[in-house]
Amino acid sequence: MGFLEDKKRTLMNLELAIREGLVDEEIIPILNKINEIDNYYTTSSCIGRVGIMEIPKDKNPKLYSRWLGKWHHYASYDELFNALKNKKEGYIVFVMNSPILHIACKDIESAKKMLELAIHSGLKASSIKSISDKRVIVEILTTYKVDTPIGEDGEIFVDNNYLKFLLDYSNSKLKRAREILMRWANRLDELKK
Amino acid sequence: MGFLEDKKRTLMNLELAIREGLVDEEIIPILNKINEIDNYYTTSSCIGRVGIMEIPKDKNPKLYSRWLGKWHHYASYDELFNALKNKKEGYIVFVMNSPILHIACKDIESAKKMLELAIHSGLKASSIKSISDKRVIVEILTTYKVDTPIGEDGEIFVDNNYLKFLLDYSNSKLKRAREILMRWANRLDELKK
Repeated sequence: MGFLEDKKRTLMNLELAIREGLVDEEIIPILNKINEIDNYYTTSSCIGRVGIMEIPKDKNPKLYSRWLGKWHHYASYDELFNALKNKKEGYIVFVMNSPILHIACKDIESAKKMLELAIHSGLKASSIKSISDKRVIVEILTTYKVDTPIGEDGEIFVDNNYLKFLLDYSNSKLKRAREILMRWANRLDELKK
Repeated sequence: MGFLEDKKRTLMNLELAIREGLVDEEIIPILNKINEIDNYYTTSSCIGRVGIMEIPKDKNPKLYSRWLGKWHHYASYDELFNALKNKKEGYIVFVMNSPILHIACKDIESAKKMLELAIHSGLKASSIKSISDKRVIVEILTTYKVDTPIGEDGEIFVDNNYLKFLLDYSNSKLKRAREILMRWANRLDELKK
């Protein structure tokens, strides 16, 4: 199967996911912009988020980590404190994950163009994640991130004032990361030429 | 100038840097292993580190951030507490940076092989950072990281027990990241075939 058939099939699945509310609202216009361009289609995306994970110490973290809370909007102190009530066991880690997109590109040349536009727009952690005959996958990513262990086994080692500071800090970094993402999104038309 | 000339020049500079003690001791055997293989040479590397940065709020962080302390060995509590005495202004951020290498590859094929070996060895954040006619740059990177704001403008918002926990956590993640790096390094001979 060729690139265009793959694109068609992937976009049908994207349509379904959007209808089911599984895709971040804010990122849909960006996905549409990319999917309008011949040599590209999106395979996954997230507008960025703040959250708290519980990560087991002895079991496989891939299988047994769980979210106490995660928010694609700018979470409030209350949302954070309420989520922490569900803590149980393992490391408790507060995270801010950058906006991220994966874009299938038709060939090396189109991947290079996409990557260079991203880097030049300030999305400095962007890269090529894989190359095959069928497609090249470009990952779009900012350098903004927060990864903070705050406790373990049901116990929090920081006070509420610090948690408020951590949330404010993370929300402001997430906001900045989204601004840079939009700067890139507004230049996507350049790839049509 | 071709790939081999670039490689020769880069390795001469590497020799000088090693003699001046500018290259992490522990990573030198890995660099040698890579540079022995025809289609590859290393352009930069770090064995991973734990550190504390002061990041200005209003000035360009690229120009005005400064390290209060950084350690490629597993730092002690005392080293951490002593470094914090020099705090002054801006965000105070504790970080654990993964081991990282940049490898110039002769062409797409050799870059793909290097990237796939890294991913399959567990270095899941590895990627291709740039492609030109002269070389393809592969970045070798684990997913382990800590990025924790702990205070601002000379004030620390967490207590010493938390800082000890944060350091222990980060040192253990750094150790794990280095184990995965070694797993990959031990398989580099596969690229000679």
